[in-house]
This record gives sequence, C-alpha cells and structure tokens, in this order.
Amino acid sequence: MEIAYINGQFLPGEKIKISPGDRGFLFADGVYEVAKWYAGFFFDMESHVNRLKRSLGELKIVWPGFESFPSIADELIRANKLETSYALVYLQVTRGAARRTHYFPPAEVTPTVYASAWGSAPETTPQEEGVKVILREDIRWSRCDIKSIALLANTISFQEAWENGKKECIFVRNGYITEGSHSNIFFVIDGTLCTHPESNHILSGVTRKNILKIAQDNGMKIKEEAVHKSMLRSCQEAFITNTSAEITPVTDMDGIIIGDGLPGPVSRMLRKYFDEVIKSLKG
Amino acid sequence: MEIAYINGQFLPGEKIKISPGDRGFLFADGVYEVAKWYAGFFFDMESHVNRLKRSLGELKIVWPGFESFPSIADELIRANKLETSYALVYLQVTRGAARRTHYFPPAEVTPTVYASAWGSAPETTPQEEGVKVILREDIRWSRCDIKSIALLANTISFQEAWENGKKECIFVRNGYITEGSHSNIFFVIDGTLCTHPESNHILSGVTRKNILKIAQDNGMKIKEEAVHKSMLRSCQEAFITNTSAEITPVTDMDGIIIGDGLPGPVSRMLRKYFDEVIKSLKG
Repeated sequence: MEIAYINGQFLPGEKIKISPGDRGFLFADGVYEVAKWYAGFFFDMESHVNRLKRSLGELKIVWPGFESFPSIADELIRANKLETSYALVYLQVTRGAARRTHYFPPAEVTPTVYASAWGSAPETTPQEEGVKVILREDIRWSRCDIKSIALLANTISFQEAWENGKKECIFVRNGYITEGSHSNIFFVIDGTLCTHPESNHILSGVTRKNILKIAQDNGMKIKEEAVHKSMLRSCQEAFITNTSAEITPVTDMDGIIIGDGLPGPVSRMLRKYFDEVIKSLKG
Repeated sequence: MEIAYINGQFLPGEKIKISPGDRGFLFADGVYEVAKWYAGFFFDMESHVNRLKRSLGELKIVWPGFESFPSIADELIRANKLETSYALVYLQVTRGAARRTHYFPPAEVTPTVYASAWGSAPETTPQEEGVKVILREDIRWSRCDIKSIALLANTISFQEAWENGKKECIFVRNGYITEGSHSNIFFVIDGTLCTHPESNHILSGVTRKNILKIAQDNGMKIKEEAVHKSMLRSCQEAFITNTSAEITPVTDMDGIIIGDGLPGPVSRMLRKYFDEVIKSLKG
C-alpha cells in the first residue's frame, strides 16, 4: 500500500485525511513542489527547496521545516520501494485549518504538510515524435511566479487541450507566449534559444533554469525574451520543459506547424546534453 | 457540537475529513456559495442556486444534486439550532478525489459536496460609520465570474487590507475599479448609481443584483459601467455589497476621502429599502 506523509508522519495514503477547514481546501491557500527521482537520486533538489522557500515566503506561510523536503522525499522513495525506479515526489504546504476568514488565521495555526510519491516511467514517444499543443489566452492570475495550488485556470485550460487530443495548453498574454499549463516553453529563432524571462507571468521552472545553463555551457545563443505569437511561423523549433518530462519537442501549435513539423536538432541536442548531465550524476 | 454536511450525510464537523487527493485540495478545482439566513428564511436562495448551477456548468463539474442546496441549508440551520438567529450557510462542491492529473478525472469520480453553517450577528458599526479600504492591482484570474475556491489572490489581497486596519481590498484592473476581494462595489457619481457591469472580471453578486433592482424600483438612475480610479475624488459616495454584510458604506479608499468622508444619503436610503425588503419577507 502506498505510503504518504502528513505533518511529520508516514502513513498508508488512505489513512491520511484533511480537515475541510484546511485553507488549502477552502482558499487554495498553499504551495507545492514536484521533484524527480532518477532511480538513485533527485535531480536538482536544491532548486526545488529554494523555490519552495520562496513560494512560502511570498505567501507568508510559515513552515520552518521547509529544508526537510529532501529527507521526506528520500523516506517516501524508500517506504514505497521506488529506490530503483523513476519516480515523482509531490509536496504541498497549506496555511492550515482554521475558521473560514479571508484574512490569515492566528500564528498558532500550523501549516498542513502533505507529500506523496509515485513511480513515473519516462515516456519516450512524445520526446521522439514531438507533441501538438493548443494556444489559449492566459486567464491565470498575475503571480504565476508563486508555485501555488490555485491551479484551476491551469486545469481547465489543460483539459481543453486534452479533449482535443493535444498534450499541452500554451498561454498567450497580450499577444506574447508565456508558458504552458504545467511547463515552460522555449523557441529556436534564427539559431537563438528564446524563452520568456522570469517575471510574475511565468513560473521559474527548475528544468527551464537547467536547460538555460546547459545551453550556455555548450555555447548556444540565448535570449530571455517573450516571443510574440506572430513569430510562431518563423521559428525553427519549439519545446516544452518540466520536471517530469524534461524536454518535449512541440511540432504543432494550434495548427501552426513549427519548423518542418518534426523535432529539431536543437531540442535533440539539448536532450542529449541533459541525459549526459543525468548520467554524470548517476556516477 | 457543530453539525456539517458531507456527500449526503450530516455529521459532527470534526468527524468530516477530506481525502488529500481531493481536487479541491490539490487544484482549487471547485466552486462555492454562501447564503444568509435571516432568523427564519434564506434571502434569495434562488439566485444562489442559479449561480451555483452556472459555476458548476462553467467548470463542467457534474453535481446533479445542486437543487438540494436549499434543503441541505435548511437542515444545517435546524441541526445547529440556528432557526432564530442570523446565520450563514457555506456550500462547496469540488470535482472529487482522484489520482493527481491536470486533466479531469474519469466520469465515475463523483464530486465532493461539503457544507457548514454558523451564526453571524449583524455588525452595525461598519454600516453606520463606514469603512476604509485599500486599492490594489487586480492580480486575480480572468474568470472572476465563476465563484470558484481558487481564492488565493483574494486572501492575500484582503490580508494586506487587514494588516493595515482596513476592511476590504478593492481591485483595479487597467485603471478601472472592478470589485472587492469578497464584495462588489458601487459609486454614486452626480446622483447616478454606478457599478462595474457583469463581465469575466467580477462576480455577479446576489446582493449586487438585488441592490440594482431595489434602486431601479425606487426610481434611481443606474449606470452599469466601470468607474476609473481617476473618478474617485469626484464621486459623492461609495459602498460595498455582499451576502453577509449586505451594504457597507466606504468612506476612504487608499487615503482618498469619498464625498464628505461619512456614509451618504444614497447608501443610507438603499440600506433602508433593503431592510424593508427583508422585513416584508419575514411576513
């Protein structure tokens, strides 16, 4: 039976229950992280911990235990016998359970910390063949830099992609591509790797950051600038990044064929470099 | 002990627990309503049921039982011995508990329906003396017409007001006043009652709608038009409306004194008319 984590305890998942007064349930008043386990180690757990700290800080949720995320994650891998698998660990921190008020509860109300883990075998087809995505108006709030659980806009937008057989919904704000419902997006335009700069309109993705570093280390030209949707027809490649799927080429955006409609050399090369980084960490 | 409602059952509140896999907890994937009990009847429950139906429909959450909200609410009043009190009934419907995916779970996953009730004595001081509010950029998403539980932007904005001793945070989008974190807002400008039109940027408040009707029935001039923040110094009155507090005059918006800094005759008159409607319903 799956073992999960709640407020300091590791328990069978089905024994874990939340109060309906939890502000995560009533107000989406919480943050989360997802880290990836590569059959022996977490990739860049440090960045996940740093981002968790930042998200908590932006929302003034006080969880002094944020640095225990790696040890909670390790224990979930062990308890669920995922040591030799690929897996994801999800951790969520909400402001805790209290009488329903829009203002924050008193300091004695402690956060609810919940975490779980599950095996996640790498999917190779999307990465080899690329995926089609839809483009939709970015209806989300203006603090997408906080990794909050207020994900309703993300889910209803992604659902529209899903129902149309597409693999992601990419958002457009004031004509500019921001990111996907659960990914960042990169473009190759005239040989330069372009992605939306860090701002309140995108999440600072851990994979995004690592791809930028890998690209720079390998001498690629990089521009952290928002791409206007009118540029889509003239870009050679596009790909999305996130922790679980790493790099996924995008071949079709709402009917606009990207490049020649096949995964391009830059995304293939970055995939190779990324795999090499993972291999080097395996030691 | 407080009695609450969960998925068809009335139980002591502390016995009610939610799965951490509930999409209300993980994704803010749910909607809610709050109806007010006037020591004998709910005011305009029909509008709450209609809005609940609309919110569910917009999110494609299938809860065929939405018409049972009034009977659930009645039973909560009875079970909690609130019959002769003023009280609020809160009802929340989420898409249910399932494996965490951004796309919606399969149809066999049923929604989680949770409701609770509490006594809520009318506060007279804010209504008689008016309140001060802060003005902040509207950082919320673009589907504020859906009464969703994705309220994080509302809570962190209201918290800022609260910490400054103010009673509401009023949002400004592209220079125009939209609404408050949990209220609609009206202005009196040159004798005309002005409020933001129904749109994706405001919630269609039940009290808002009833105030508009009462104003019209009493021959007031009405304009459903967004008010630019540059107009605040030239408006004679402002007031906020919501189900719990009904009508609350606003005397100071981020340091801008409204009118002569005291509750004005229009809001006092509307308060009187509203009280008369309530009295007439008491029979």
